[in-house]
Amino acid sequence: MTDRRHVIALCGGVGGAKLAFGLTRILSPQDLTIVVNTGDDFEHLGLSISPDIDTVTYTLSDLADRERGWGRKDESWNFMAALTALGGEDWFNLGDRDLAMHVERTRRLAAGETLSRITADLTAALGIGHPVVPMSDQPVRTVLETAHGDLAFQTYFVRERCQPAVSAVRYVGADVARPAPIFAGLLARKDIAAVALCPSNPYLSIDPILAIPGVREALKALAAPIVAVSPIIGDTALKGPAAKLMTELGARPGVVDLVRHYDGLLDGLVIDHANAEDVTALQALGVHPLVTDAIMRSDDDRARLARETLTLAHGLSQPLPEYN
Amino acid sequence: MTDRRHVIALCGGVGGAKLAFGLTRILSPQDLTIVVNTGDDFEHLGLSISPDIDTVTYTLSDLADRERGWGRKDESWNFMAALTALGGEDWFNLGDRDLAMHVERTRRLAAGETLSRITADLTAALGIGHPVVPMSDQPVRTVLETAHGDLAFQTYFVRERCQPAVSAVRYVGADVARPAPIFAGLLARKDIAAVALCPSNPYLSIDPILAIPGVREALKALAAPIVAVSPIIGDTALKGPAAKLMTELGARPGVVDLVRHYDGLLDGLVIDHANAEDVTALQALGVHPLVTDAIMRSDDDRARLARETLTLAHGLSQPLPEYN
Repeated sequence: MTDRRHVIALCGGVGGAKLAFGLTRILSPQDLTIVVNTGDDFEHLGLSISPDIDTVTYTLSDLADRERGWGRKDESWNFMAALTALGGEDWFNLGDRDLAMHVERTRRLAAGETLSRITADLTAALGIGHPVVPMSDQPVRTVLETAHGDLAFQTYFVRERCQPAVSAVRYVGADVARPAPIFAGLLARKDIAAVALCPSNPYLSIDPILAIPGVREALKALAAPIVAVSPIIGDTALKGPAAKLMTELGARPGVVDLVRHYDGLLDGLVIDHANAEDVTALQALGVHPLVTDAIMRSDDDRARLARETLTLAHGLSQPLPEYN
Repeated sequence: MTDRRHVIALCGGVGGAKLAFGLTRILSPQDLTIVVNTGDDFEHLGLSISPDIDTVTYTLSDLADRERGWGRKDESWNFMAALTALGGEDWFNLGDRDLAMHVERTRRLAAGETLSRITADLTAALGIGHPVVPMSDQPVRTVLETAHGDLAFQTYFVRERCQPAVSAVRYVGADVARPAPIFAGLLARKDIAAVALCPSNPYLSIDPILAIPGVREALKALAAPIVAVSPIIGDTALKGPAAKLMTELGARPGVVDLVRHYDGLLDGLVIDHANAEDVTALQALGVHPLVTDAIMRSDDDRARLARETLTLAHGLSQPLPEYN
């Protein structure tokens, strides 16, 4: 019998990174891989920027600015001030320390290295022991269809501040992307204990990962439970446009339509007390709920929620198949 | 009779930029063009860096750090600290504010714009009214032949701190470079009053400009006097390896061999009182000396030396040719 220990976490930016942080506090580096969305990666000022990888990296290395909610703590903004003075494009804020990540990534990508390799080295340099893996080494770009035309993710998210109503979301390049090698390797392993969907935006953070050909099917085939932590508390998102997008795309903001959105993928869902009334509806959809305080205010909250997520997954595990 | 008013200044980094600053204080933007060495341009961390253009730009916009002698004043170094933490290549210091210049230049070069166009825009953005022109829009790279092999300029200058003995200097790419359009236009004008060689390293700052095919001949053909301000005071350079290079390349550090090095190019030379004993030798070489205080400590010194340089040139002007 194989010992199923390894956990795959699928992760976007801020909210997801908090749960990923919690998972790193209770799982060893051998037992956890954090697979990160790259659908909101973009090229800006000639730099290759991977916002979700960076948020996860800064969160895990405790370099993230917790109050601002993005970027690095103890950050300075002298590059931006000088760029503005030069008449440069300054709608996307890049801190002086943060810039080192983008410059180094850009240089190495231009030299032909993979995003996987670069991410492994840069996270290791910051003392992160747990593997952080981009979903793919091929570019996938989330595009939002709006009344103002198609918007690249960061244009929608940062420049337009999520204001335009979205009629559809596309993942350009996903059709020819492959899971990054380490991610692909995980999908073929027999010892996966659980797949955890971190509390990230379903359309903008998790769906890009699922849009890579074969990923969704491989996750389902793992014989490990797939559990999510809801990014929706009550009928709103703690951060970002998840609830607004649900409405615009024809769903009712809340955990029930979140489960419907994932269309049979989920075995379990961690929800907040604010959604306790939805327990029966979730069960009717074949999803096991766990009701808790799903808002992560402290490091202890992060570890607790991670533990509860794994507890839920553990309870949903089928008897282990007998190998050999 | 054409009114000869326009001055062409050939310029390298720090010392040269000081005289260029002085020239901008006594000549209007219509009457001065500063042509800047690009032989020490290089690509580092994926960024296109033009050290002499930046030094001139920061000096003319009064953004230069006068005490450190390079880069911007009120600079911060958080990018470098973060880059070091990531294991990046950190032998070349890039300040946070300075970085905006490199990122913006790199982006626009990659988009197909010329260095001339970019330099014009970035200097204008910083309030510089006088034209600052790269010597060429084609890359020219100064390479130093040493016992340790060929060294790119910045490797020699910054990483190796000018320690290796130099046996020869090459300007790679100069043979197929053309003067930047505005520089080429100047070389065809009939109203050039003077060509001023700023007090820059002859091998590393002025020779790269002269190495562009046709430039030296065109300067000689201008019928305007060519005057230099000596970067050598006594037998040493105020800054940088000019004297050391003269010795290594078989010359005697001083103003006499400086004139010999330029091999008939110069009509006049501004020298420091420390070199007053060389006046006769200079005259014997056909060069008119002007003895003054050639060290620029203040803005007043810069303007004074610029004025003296133009006074020397004015005295050397041939009677104007009669046109039409």
